[in-house]
Amino acid sequence: MGEFDLIARYFTRPAKRAALGVGDDCALLAPAPGMQLAVSSDMLVEGRHFLSTVEPARLGHKALAVNLSDLAACGAKPLAFTLALSMPSVDEPWLAGFSRGLLALADEYACELIGGDTTRGPLNICITVFGEVPAGAALLRSGARVGDDIWVSGTLGDARLALEAFRGTLSLPAPMLKQARLRMEQPTPRVALGLALRGVATAAIDVSDGLLGDLVHVLLASRVGARIDADAVTDLVAARRMPSNAESGLALETFRTCALSGGDDYELAFTARPTARDAVEQVSLASHTVVTRIGTVEAEPGVRVVDAHGTPLTQRFPSFDHFG
Amino acid sequence: MGEFDLIARYFTRPAKRAALGVGDDCALLAPAPGMQLAVSSDMLVEGRHFLSTVEPARLGHKALAVNLSDLAACGAKPLAFTLALSMPSVDEPWLAGFSRGLLALADEYACELIGGDTTRGPLNICITVFGEVPAGAALLRSGARVGDDIWVSGTLGDARLALEAFRGTLSLPAPMLKQARLRMEQPTPRVALGLALRGVATAAIDVSDGLLGDLVHVLLASRVGARIDADAVTDLVAARRMPSNAESGLALETFRTCALSGGDDYELAFTARPTARDAVEQVSLASHTVVTRIGTVEAEPGVRVVDAHGTPLTQRFPSFDHFG
Repeated sequence: MGEFDLIARYFTRPAKRAALGVGDDCALLAPAPGMQLAVSSDMLVEGRHFLSTVEPARLGHKALAVNLSDLAACGAKPLAFTLALSMPSVDEPWLAGFSRGLLALADEYACELIGGDTTRGPLNICITVFGEVPAGAALLRSGARVGDDIWVSGTLGDARLALEAFRGTLSLPAPMLKQARLRMEQPTPRVALGLALRGVATAAIDVSDGLLGDLVHVLLASRVGARIDADAVTDLVAARRMPSNAESGLALETFRTCALSGGDDYELAFTARPTARDAVEQVSLASHTVVTRIGTVEAEPGVRVVDAHGTPLTQRFPSFDHFG
Repeated sequence: MGEFDLIARYFTRPAKRAALGVGDDCALLAPAPGMQLAVSSDMLVEGRHFLSTVEPARLGHKALAVNLSDLAACGAKPLAFTLALSMPSVDEPWLAGFSRGLLALADEYACELIGGDTTRGPLNICITVFGEVPAGAALLRSGARVGDDIWVSGTLGDARLALEAFRGTLSLPAPMLKQARLRMEQPTPRVALGLALRGVATAAIDVSDGLLGDLVHVLLASRVGARIDADAVTDLVAARRMPSNAESGLALETFRTCALSGGDDYELAFTARPTARDAVEQVSLASHTVVTRIGTVEAEPGVRVVDAHGTPLTQRFPSFDHFG
């Protein structure tokens, strides 16, 4: 099967909102009047962003999910995406599964595949996603102010637990591994939360390289620092709350490290004024997304991770670096 | 050097037109009122789209040029692009050269780098480019009509000659190789021509996989066929007109094959009414781009490549397929 047959069979669907779909030199997009277009690109490489053992449908889901997560962090509504795909050979069962997972998530968010590229080469998936947001309403990294609460959505650290289990550095009871693996392979982009946080959050970012590392981007852009409650964050590891954790033998420190710096969570970390706590709760309810308050923005630069007594932890939490 | 330092050092420049530049979760773009956004994505893989021996600055140029060529084929004005880059290791001299070539071409077309991604992995360059075009004015593949002239810009076949010389399937005298290599490594996107062809061309496409193969996309989208003058096309190989060709010993058939189906030309093929010949000449002058009439759109499906006597050639011209 050649490049054009491949595109026709697995990736071509009738254009809806886009003026033109897959198949011309360019796709055409027209944001509604008063709307800005939010654009983000993520490249996924085997061994770095996914394991070779991942089910193709889950990989298709994840490849788009990590991009939708960037839109969520800006409070942008998904519109469309392009897919560039390099593969060692035309593997039809793989392509069928990959496109099924990819397009199912795309349909869920009414995010249309409008173009792209396919070529032979080492497996590499590059998606560029487009969303729209009213001019001036995008959530930025630079808006956090001293005294703001720091919040995070959903759960943290499970994806890293699964990665470490696959790497063989720790072992998880089967139910914990299953749950953690699902978080690693099929993250949920927090799109509804991001949309609802417009006008409520003062700054936001998606947690892809680990909570602390990503939070630092917000703090630097906002020229502030933060105090983070280690226990509140560690409680967000879902696998830790499972009954089978009793037999895992994992130390608290392992959960804490995964939650604070694990990576691959695709949750939203955001800041909001303390006077907006009720509003944040409403946003959480309306978007069906749990959010947890985990710290405070402070004037002093840097991040202080403290225990229940307010004592700073001495443990180091390196962020996940794709060149590390 | 980590991922964030790398981005900061080689790819971060102050935002101009984009509301936000490199560094937030998304870049924000606001097309002017009445404008549509044209979007295209191309992925370049070592060994498929470039040789490992290419100078990094030339590769940076080419990676953006092939994307600008897609905008040109739509008659869209370049606005911005994202870059996703996977590299085996952080090679600073390579990055310095690559970003220099890339950003020099970006500056030439006022096309701003607004975001992207970097990761470790096999060398892979994925650029998504954005241009703007008045609503309804984009050049499409589907507008060719029976009786239209078929035109092509610039020169054809030289990139393929260089590729075959590097592959060792033919040998070129040094001046011919130098000229052909430049065409392979530093193609010129025909942006000014594409802009000037709005309202003049009935259909357009950029020639990336070979003239005949790309022309077929236009013919299928327009539900027409074509007659192509083989001699007119073969005359477009620049290397063939060089004095040193006298000692190349290359057969006419080699030049013909490279011109008709070579690939990597990044010229524009377009159709226009015969009544628009003066207009096309004006466009050519205004955009400082040579264009040549090479055939006619016919009702009968398929492509007939004919010699000076109108006799169809029996030679086969397979198009360049990135999975072939």
